[in-house]
Amino acid sequence: MNKITLLIHCKDRSNIIASVTNFIAKEGGNIVYIDQHVDREQDIFFMRLESEFTIDSFTTSGFKELFKNTLASEFDMKWRIYSSEVKPKMALFISKYDHCLYDLLGRYNSGELNLEIPFIISNHLDLKPIADNFKIPFHHIPVTKNTKNEAESKQLELLEKHNIDFIVLARYMQIVSRKLISKYPNKIINIHHSFLPAFVGAKPYHSAYKRGVKIIGATSHYVTEELDAGPIIEQGVAHVSHTHSIQDLIAKGRDLEKIVLANAVKLHTDRKVMVYNNKTVIFY
Amino acid sequence: MNKITLLIHCKDRSNIIASVTNFIAKEGGNIVYIDQHVDREQDIFFMRLESEFTIDSFTTSGFKELFKNTLASEFDMKWRIYSSEVKPKMALFISKYDHCLYDLLGRYNSGELNLEIPFIISNHLDLKPIADNFKIPFHHIPVTKNTKNEAESKQLELLEKHNIDFIVLARYMQIVSRKLISKYPNKIINIHHSFLPAFVGAKPYHSAYKRGVKIIGATSHYVTEELDAGPIIEQGVAHVSHTHSIQDLIAKGRDLEKIVLANAVKLHTDRKVMVYNNKTVIFY
Amino acid sequence: MNKITLLIHCKDRSNIIASVTNFIAKEGGNIVYIDQHVDREQDIFFMRLESEFTIDSFTTSGFKELFKNTLASEFDMKWRIYSSEVKPKMALFISKYDHCLYDLLGRYNSGELNLEIPFIISNHLDLKPIADNFKIPFHHIPVTKNTKNEAESKQLELLEKHNIDFIVLARYMQIVSRKLISKYPNKIINIHHSFLPAFVGAKPYHSAYKRGVKIIGATSHYVTEELDAGPIIEQGVAHVSHTHSIQDLIAKGRDLEKIVLANAVKLHTDRKVMVYNNKTVIFY
Amino acid sequence: MNKITLLIHCKDRSNIIASVTNFIAKEGGNIVYIDQHVDREQDIFFMRLESEFTIDSFTTSGFKELFKNTLASEFDMKWRIYSSEVKPKMALFISKYDHCLYDLLGRYNSGELNLEIPFIISNHLDLKPIADNFKIPFHHIPVTKNTKNEAESKQLELLEKHNIDFIVLARYMQIVSRKLISKYPNKIINIHHSFLPAFVGAKPYHSAYKRGVKIIGATSHYVTEELDAGPIIEQGVAHVSHTHSIQDLIAKGRDLEKIVLANAVKLHTDRKVMVYNNKTVIFY
Repeated sequence: MNKITLLIHCKDRSNIIASVTNFIAKEGGNIVYIDQHVDREQDIFFMRLESEFTIDSFTTSGFKELFKNTLASEFDMKWRIYSSEVKPKMALFISKYDHCLYDLLGRYNSGELNLEIPFIISNHLDLKPIADNFKIPFHHIPVTKNTKNEAESKQLELLEKHNIDFIVLARYMQIVSRKLISKYPNKIINIHHSFLPAFVGAKPYHSAYKRGVKIIGATSHYVTEELDAGPIIEQGVAHVSHTHSIQDLIAKGRDLEKIVLANAVKLHTDRKVMVYNNKTVIFY
Repeated sequence: MNKITLLIHCKDRSNIIASVTNFIAKEGGNIVYIDQHVDREQDIFFMRLESEFTIDSFTTSGFKELFKNTLASEFDMKWRIYSSEVKPKMALFISKYDHCLYDLLGRYNSGELNLEIPFIISNHLDLKPIADNFKIPFHHIPVTKNTKNEAESKQLELLEKHNIDFIVLARYMQIVSRKLISKYPNKIINIHHSFLPAFVGAKPYHSAYKRGVKIIGATSHYVTEELDAGPIIEQGVAHVSHTHSIQDLIAKGRDLEKIVLANAVKLHTDRKVMVYNNKTVIFY
Repeated sequence: MNKITLLIHCKDRSNIIASVTNFIAKEGGNIVYIDQHVDREQDIFFMRLESEFTIDSFTTSGFKELFKNTLASEFDMKWRIYSSEVKPKMALFISKYDHCLYDLLGRYNSGELNLEIPFIISNHLDLKPIADNFKIPFHHIPVTKNTKNEAESKQLELLEKHNIDFIVLARYMQIVSRKLISKYPNKIINIHHSFLPAFVGAKPYHSAYKRGVKIIGATSHYVTEELDAGPIIEQGVAHVSHTHSIQDLIAKGRDLEKIVLANAVKLHTDRKVMVYNNKTVIFY
Repeated sequence: MNKITLLIHCKDRSNIIASVTNFIAKEGGNIVYIDQHVDREQDIFFMRLESEFTIDSFTTSGFKELFKNTLASEFDMKWRIYSSEVKPKMALFISKYDHCLYDLLGRYNSGELNLEIPFIISNHLDLKPIADNFKIPFHHIPVTKNTKNEAESKQLELLEKHNIDFIVLARYMQIVSRKLISKYPNKIINIHHSFLPAFVGAKPYHSAYKRGVKIIGATSHYVTEELDAGPIIEQGVAHVSHTHSIQDLIAKGRDLEKIVLANAVKLHTDRKVMVYNNKTVIFY
C-alpha cells in the first residue's frame, strides 16, 4: 500500500476542499486525514491531507504529475507531496553543548524519530565521543574568520553529497551563512534559548535574569537571514523566581531547549508544518 | 447567507470524506471548516464540518431532510446539523459558591458566550442578588430529602417551558436525578474540583491535601449516572506545595474551576464536542 | 495578640539572621514565618519575617521605634514593618474593559482579598453600573489632552483624602503621570497584556499575532516612568496556534490578565513583594 | 571553609528559630539559607538551614555531637546534618526503557547532578551498552519468581559494599522487596507514569486513554510498601487530546518522566526534601 501526504496553500475560494477530495477519490485514494485552515486576513487557504492508495498501478511520481497538471494548475496552488516510505535526512550541527545532542540521539536510537542522520558537523571536537558512541559519522569543521568561506564549502559539499533534506542546529554557536540559508529555505531548524521575540541574540538567560522575568522560554524556528526572526515552530516555558541564579536559568532552560527542539523536529519530519508570511501553520 | 455546522460519526470506511464534501458542493455549499478523526481502536470515523450556503432557496430543514435520506442513510451515520443563527439556551444551576457564577455572567455580559441564559435555578437564596444584578430570572427550588421529587418536577417544568438546550452545574451542590440526566444526555455540564479520575466525590481538595499532591486540578465533564465518571470535556491544573493549606487549595482551585468550566461551555455551544464511548472528541 | 510582618534588605554580611531572630526573641516575639534571599551578584540580603507578640505592653509603633534605633541602624537596613490588623487601601483605575474589574470585585466580595477599596476612578462612564452593583463609589474623571493636569489633580486629591496605600490599573487605558508615579513608588500595579519584555506598548495581541508566537502572556508589574519596564511581579502564559485570530488571542488573554493581576494584588497586599534594582524578590 | 545543611522537624513551639540561629551564631557559623514551615494541622515545625563555618577547629562530626546533646535534645527534634563536601551515592535500577537512563546519565556527565553513580543494576541486558558508553559498572541481576530472594541478596550486597545513599528506579519494572524498602526508608525514588493518585499500578497510559483524560502526568515519589502510594516529590503534566493514541501518550509521557524524575533526584541530593506523614515538605 502507498501512502502520501499532501500539503497545499493557495488563494482562498469556493470548493477547494470538495475538488481535492473528489480528485483523490477518483484516483482510488482513501483519505485518512484532512485538516485545513483559512487565514482570513490574507485570504489564504491551507490544507494537509493524508491518503492511502491500494491500486497496484499507483506511483507517487505519477500522482504528482497528474496533480500538478490539473488541480494544482487550476487553483494556482503551492503544493508538496511526500511518500511515507521516504525518511527525511537530517544533518546535525553542534558545537560544545551536549544536552540537545544527547536528547535527539537518545530519541533517534529508540526509534522515536522518523528520520535518518547521515552525519554530524561540529566546529569543535568536544562532542565527538558522543557521536562515536551513537555511531554517527562526525565531521569536525572549525570556523574562524579566515576559514569561514572554506568551512561553508565543506558543509555544503557534505550536505549535497548525502542528499540532506533539512538541518538542525542543536545549539550550534555559529551564525549560518546567507548562502546556506538560501539553499535550505525553511529547512534549517534552530533552537533559541529564549521566549522569542523577547531576548533576541546572544546571552538571553543573562538578559532574562537582568529583567527579572518570572517565566523563561525556548523557541524553535526556521532560520532566515534576520537573526532569531524566522517562522516560529514551537515554544516552551518554565516558571522561575528570584531564587534562580543565571546558572539556574541556564540549567532549567536546557530542559526546555531539548523538548522544544525535539518537538519541532518531529513536526517537521511528520510534514505537519507549512510556512507563510514568516509564520507557521501547524496541523497537529 | 446560511451557515451550518455538521457533526457526523459512523463506522469507518473508504470515501466518507469525499462523499460528504461532494454532497455539500452539489448542494451549493462552500466548506469553510473541516476536521476529522478516526478512532483506530474502535474503527469509528468522526467529522465536523462548517459550510456556507448563498443560494436563496436553501433552508436548514430542507438540507437536513435531504442529508438524512441520502448520505446519512447510506453510511449509517449518527449526525447533527446546527444552524449558526440559533443560539443555544443554557440553564444555570447553582448553590452557594459564587465564583463560577460571576465568571460565566461576566463573560455572558461582555458577549463572549454565544448563548442565552433564560434563567438560573438555585437550591439556596444566597446568590439571588447576583442574578438580580445581571437581570437573569432566578428560581429558588430548595431540595431536601422529602422535596426531592417535587423539586425535580419544578426543574423539568422550567427547562421544558423555556426549551432549554443544555444545563450547566456551576458548583451546584446536589446530585442530579437519573430522570434529568436521561432527558439531557451529554447536555448537562458539571465542573468537578479535582483532576479526575483522582479524587472522585466530595471534598476533593481535602483529599488532595492529605495525599500531598504537587499539582491540583479541575475537570469539566458531561453528567452521567455514575458520579464524576462522565465524558471529560476539559481539564486544568495548577502547581501547589506543602505551604498551601486546604483553604489555599480551595482558593487556587476556584481559578481553575472558573476557566475550565467556561472553556467547556464555549466548546459545547460552538458545537465542537462529540461524545462516544464515554469519551469526547473535540475539534478545536 | 499582635502580629507583624517585617521586610528587610541591606548589604549582606555575617549574622544578620541570628541578630534579627535574637532581637525578636528578646522582645517576646514568636517567629511564625521566616524567609531570606541573598542576591550574590549585588551582595544584598533580603528577609521577610512574621512574628506574633502576646505581651500586653506590645505596640507596633514602639517596636518600630526600637528596631529603627538598634538593628536597622546597626546593619544600615531598608525596612518596613506592617501590622496585620491594618488592611491596605486600594484605588482601582479602570476604563472600558470589564473583565479585570469583575474578577477583582468578585474576589473582593467573597473575602478572598485582604484589602479595602474606597473608590474606583474611571476616565469613562461605561463601567459605572458594575461599580454601582458592587456598591463601590465611582468617580468619573475624563482625561483629554487639555484636561490632563486637572484630571491628575482630582485623582491625587481623592487618593490623599482616602489615605490610599496602592493603586491598581485594571486595564486603565491612560498613561499615568510622572507625578503620580513619584508619589506612589512601587505602589502602582499594572497589568500588561503581553509576556514582557516582548511586545511593549499598545496592541500587543496584534503584534503577537503578526509574529506568529505559539504562546501568549500577561505581565503584572509596578509602574515606573519607562513604559512597561517596571519590576515584574507575576507572569502567566497560554498556548495558542495558527487557528487563533487576533480576537481569539484577546479573548484568551483576558483570562490570563485576570488571574495574573489578581495574583499580583494578593502578593502585594500580603506584603510578600520586595523591589530592588527594578526586579522583585517575592517570598511565596 | 565548611558548609553544612541542617534539616529539622519537631513539635511546634515558641522560639525554635531564634534558638537554632543563636546556636549557629555562637558556634561561629554564618547562616546563608533558612526556610521553615509549620504544618498547622499536625502542629509540626520544619526547618532547613545552610551555614558556613570558617573556624579552623570546626568539624561536622563535632558539630553534630554538640547539636545532638543540646538543641536537638531540648526540643526533641528529628534532625539530619549533611556536609556539603560529601556527594551522595546513587544506585540506578533499570530494566528495558532507556529514556530516563539516557537523561540521567547525560545530566550526570555534564556535571548537572551533584552525586556519584557507583553502579547500575538491571534485570535485563538490553541497556548494558548505554552503561558501557558512559563507563558506569553494570550488574545484570535477573529476577524471576524462583530467583527473587537470591536477586535481592545480590542487590543488597552491592548496595552495602558501595555505601549507597539512595536508589533511583528509572523505570525499573520489578516490585521492590519489603526488605529493601525497610533498609532504605524514603531513600528509594520511583517514577510512576501517571498523575498519582490517578491510575495506580500497571499500564497507566492505557487507563488514561480509556478514561479520555485531557491531561496526562508523571509522578516521582519515595517507595513505600503500598504500591504507588509513597510520599510525592514531584509531578508534571502535559495536555493531550482525542488525536493521541496510546502510543502517543507513551511517547509524550517519556518526556514528562525524564524531567520529573531528574527534578526529584536533584531535590533529594540537594537535601531539600523532608518526609512526614507520607507527605513531603520541599524547601525550594
